[in-house]
Amino acid sequence: MRKKKSGKLSIIPLGGLGEIGKNMNVFQYGDDIVILDCGLAFPDEDMLGIDLVIPDMTYVFENRDKVRAVVLTHGHEDHIGALSYLLREIDVPVYGTKLPLGLVEGRLKENRVAKYNLVPVQPGDVITAGVFKVGFIQTNHSIPDACGLYIQSPVGTVVHTGDFKIDHTPVDGKIIDFHKFAELGNKGVLVLMSDSTNAERPGHTGSEREVAVSLDEEFQQADGRIIMATFSSNVSRLQQAMLAAAKYNRKVAVLGRSMANVTAIAQDLGYITAPEGMLIGTEELKNYPDNQILILTTGSQGEPMAGLSRMASNTHRSISINPGDTVLIAATPIPGNEKSVSKTIDSLLMLGAHVVYERAAGIHVSGHASQDDLQLMLNLTKPKFFIPVHGEYRMLKQHGKIAEALGIPSENIFIGDNGQVFEFTRETGRLAGKVTAGRVYVDGLGVGDIGNIVIRDRKQLAEEGVLIVVITLDKQSGTVLSGPDLVSRGFVYVRDSSGMMQEATNRVKGVLNRCEARHITDWASIKTQVREALGKYLYEKTGRRPMVLPIIMEA
Amino acid sequence: MRKKKSGKLSIIPLGGLGEIGKNMNVFQYGDDIVILDCGLAFPDEDMLGIDLVIPDMTYVFENRDKVRAVVLTHGHEDHIGALSYLLREIDVPVYGTKLPLGLVEGRLKENRVAKYNLVPVQPGDVITAGVFKVGFIQTNHSIPDACGLYIQSPVGTVVHTGDFKIDHTPVDGKIIDFHKFAELGNKGVLVLMSDSTNAERPGHTGSEREVAVSLDEEFQQADGRIIMATFSSNVSRLQQAMLAAAKYNRKVAVLGRSMANVTAIAQDLGYITAPEGMLIGTEELKNYPDNQILILTTGSQGEPMAGLSRMASNTHRSISINPGDTVLIAATPIPGNEKSVSKTIDSLLMLGAHVVYERAAGIHVSGHASQDDLQLMLNLTKPKFFIPVHGEYRMLKQHGKIAEALGIPSENIFIGDNGQVFEFTRETGRLAGKVTAGRVYVDGLGVGDIGNIVIRDRKQLAEEGVLIVVITLDKQSGTVLSGPDLVSRGFVYVRDSSGMMQEATNRVKGVLNRCEARHITDWASIKTQVREALGKYLYEKTGRRPMVLPIIMEA
Repeated sequence: MRKKKSGKLSIIPLGGLGEIGKNMNVFQYGDDIVILDCGLAFPDEDMLGIDLVIPDMTYVFENRDKVRAVVLTHGHEDHIGALSYLLREIDVPVYGTKLPLGLVEGRLKENRVAKYNLVPVQPGDVITAGVFKVGFIQTNHSIPDACGLYIQSPVGTVVHTGDFKIDHTPVDGKIIDFHKFAELGNKGVLVLMSDSTNAERPGHTGSEREVAVSLDEEFQQADGRIIMATFSSNVSRLQQAMLAAAKYNRKVAVLGRSMANVTAIAQDLGYITAPEGMLIGTEELKNYPDNQILILTTGSQGEPMAGLSRMASNTHRSISINPGDTVLIAATPIPGNEKSVSKTIDSLLMLGAHVVYERAAGIHVSGHASQDDLQLMLNLTKPKFFIPVHGEYRMLKQHGKIAEALGIPSENIFIGDNGQVFEFTRETGRLAGKVTAGRVYVDGLGVGDIGNIVIRDRKQLAEEGVLIVVITLDKQSGTVLSGPDLVSRGFVYVRDSSGMMQEATNRVKGVLNRCEARHITDWASIKTQVREALGKYLYEKTGRRPMVLPIIMEA
Repeated sequence: MRKKKSGKLSIIPLGGLGEIGKNMNVFQYGDDIVILDCGLAFPDEDMLGIDLVIPDMTYVFENRDKVRAVVLTHGHEDHIGALSYLLREIDVPVYGTKLPLGLVEGRLKENRVAKYNLVPVQPGDVITAGVFKVGFIQTNHSIPDACGLYIQSPVGTVVHTGDFKIDHTPVDGKIIDFHKFAELGNKGVLVLMSDSTNAERPGHTGSEREVAVSLDEEFQQADGRIIMATFSSNVSRLQQAMLAAAKYNRKVAVLGRSMANVTAIAQDLGYITAPEGMLIGTEELKNYPDNQILILTTGSQGEPMAGLSRMASNTHRSISINPGDTVLIAATPIPGNEKSVSKTIDSLLMLGAHVVYERAAGIHVSGHASQDDLQLMLNLTKPKFFIPVHGEYRMLKQHGKIAEALGIPSENIFIGDNGQVFEFTRETGRLAGKVTAGRVYVDGLGVGDIGNIVIRDRKQLAEEGVLIVVITLDKQSGTVLSGPDLVSRGFVYVRDSSGMMQEATNRVKGVLNRCEARHITDWASIKTQVREALGKYLYEKTGRRPMVLPIIMEA
């Protein structure tokens, strides 16, 4: 018999609410914490110079002694990419299926995390972590080995779908485990947390198998090289490309470190199968005629440093695009990337390639459930409470409406943002305050050392440039020994602006003279006056407001 | 009888090929030039700090004595927005229908262009400009008074569609003049230049009238304020909103300078009609209940400074969003703006508004012809030669394929880029070299003073920030009098990095000592060595490459 407990279950998403990216959830009951996923996000364009964004893990670090386990739903970066930063701080076992763990291990080694404990599980397995039991359920997604999880707590069961779609004909043959979701629904689900990415999209998401049909057509028609770009993490798409290559007798070269790594790991673990000798190195490409070549590469988002982008701009180290090449872009642009993808396509077309991209062809399908599928998940699991996750606010909101239309009372549907504590008993659910949450910027080697001030400065520098004014003052008398010297970057082309720069120098001299006359020797005041006088003059002349940076030296 | 001429017609697009924006075309025959449109483009995100982009008009300025006329197709910024910059340099009459000229005049006054000669015409009119005759043909677009033009030259007739769609039920009742296009086709069209914006979109573009139906539904359901965002230049959409407001008895406040200007001009000229007393000022809004209010504003693209974006971020001067407000976003995001639009929607939803946006509703239709419409235009005009215009390269390419499928020989279809000279005789057409063309950046008051070096500097500043190293040397001995002082912006948060900054200072001292020991006094060498030593150290410590800017003073 189950022991009666009077405690409360807290669910605290630290990422993934109001955004697509850096998914991370804390499940806490008393002194036990389980963490579900630990992902990264890619920076918005206004996060100048930032490489990666990870969740603010303050809450986890403050409660480090309570953390019993990390459990992973699947191997995409937005679910596993911040694990290095967590495992550097906390020693905790990480449970997941083989492929995500393989990808995690690759990344941990790269980031030189010495100590870790990765525990492989299979769909169907249940692990124990403190007071919790966590079960893994087969789902479908654009990467194999994706799982939904159910977390059994003393007050009831939570189902978290992970990223999922409903694919009746998945490439690996492993159909989402409807029966388990149904069984859980029958036994009683306290809370459902479900993927909202496509909550705005009507209907059912197509099968990965549809891609196979379109790919087959393209392979059949192509009589030159085929170059296919996709996400390196889209293992299903890579596998399909391999199958098509095998059928049409093409050798396959995988370009780029990330894609080569993922392919190697997925192949080692049996998630990608390729006939002996089909995979070749880039240097071997010259030994085969064009119609026996498939090149797999990244750059489906127009990322400037990725393989396809470099080919498009004719700056790739080893591959040049020729007329007769067929380029398949097997991914949809992520919001924000449309323009760079479009530029890549234009450049490839200009080089004479036949380019097959989203609008024109079925070589990409979404990895996320659409509205009909989301309804099915809600109806199978029949949750008492519902938390839409993994989506921008409007997607969460839309997912909430879907649930409401299926009869879940609106007061049992919780839409929150990162850091929100959702608190449940056996009977009740409520919003119970917030914990620290947010973005931590990773820039180069620095984690969290870049804050809003630095970003704000970068923004001003980016928009208007900088004008530096250097003055050397005499230590004793405070009179000007040298300068003012003006140096600018990103403001105007100085060679064409010598008149203005001369006049700007005169303005600074005027300020210095006035300061001297009034016996103002306080550096802060002098700097302020220089900044104001120059700012005003430059705005009149140019309509721009560069960052004016007075530097006073003493000699 | 037509005089036999042996000359050649050159068509030179200076903008609009390989891009959506800054449309401008030169038609030249001997010593006569006619310019068709003179538009601006909005900067790409990698053009840091740039306000506007205009075509490089070098060719026009070099041939200023030959320019007989500017003719305008319609009043959108990407067709008229660079006229101020042209008319400041060249005194030439500008022909167009009433609305575009009204909008041009407003802009010329704003930009303080003193001298101009705007000549109003009507669809059906023909004007003479040197050897050319230019006729205006009624078309449909998302702004009234849009025209296609036909340019009669001694070697034959060129038809330029302008931006067009085929709308059988336009809001102003003026259907595109099929008959004129057909008549020209029957008489013989040498060259067709046609709008390629939607060449990738199958089918027929819907009527503006469809928007009316969707708007009506929204107005019927809304019981609070309605706030509608669209482009200020979308006069048709503004007119529809006014009609709906009149029907449902709402007062209308038009926010923002640009939209208020356009509305005033369009109303003066009779393109927007509003019942007496319907338009009110923002300050009068408080006198009416919420269900009698319509607010028209900009910000449909999530532009940070526009009305709707400010409301979404709760920083608008006079309007706060309340639960119960209905927000209609009556425009599709332009590629590159998806993310900011998405943020605006999320913020509005969080404030409790009911938000109706693209995916969910029919409150926007495109202003550009789709594939079926483009076929109709090609078949009506039956051109000997075809130049797809107004589009990214892939759209031009696709439009070329459409023409080819209709029987135009591929060698008679010319896809070029800006500056390309397309040369025609009565019988022949060919690519005949290139003239100077490209982008001129407008930043603040400066036109063309920002070049690639400044942009490159801004990019580095934006990504990594700047570290300034100032040293004062003794004029006689060359020994260090003061410094090195290090100042950084946008690099690291200095307060948290004092150790690194101290060590960086030491490294600079080391360089200076070594230079002194080796009697290196050449400033350029010292600067290079400082830059290299610091760059290396900082990259090791942070993985970042800030701009290192050594400044040497002498005292």
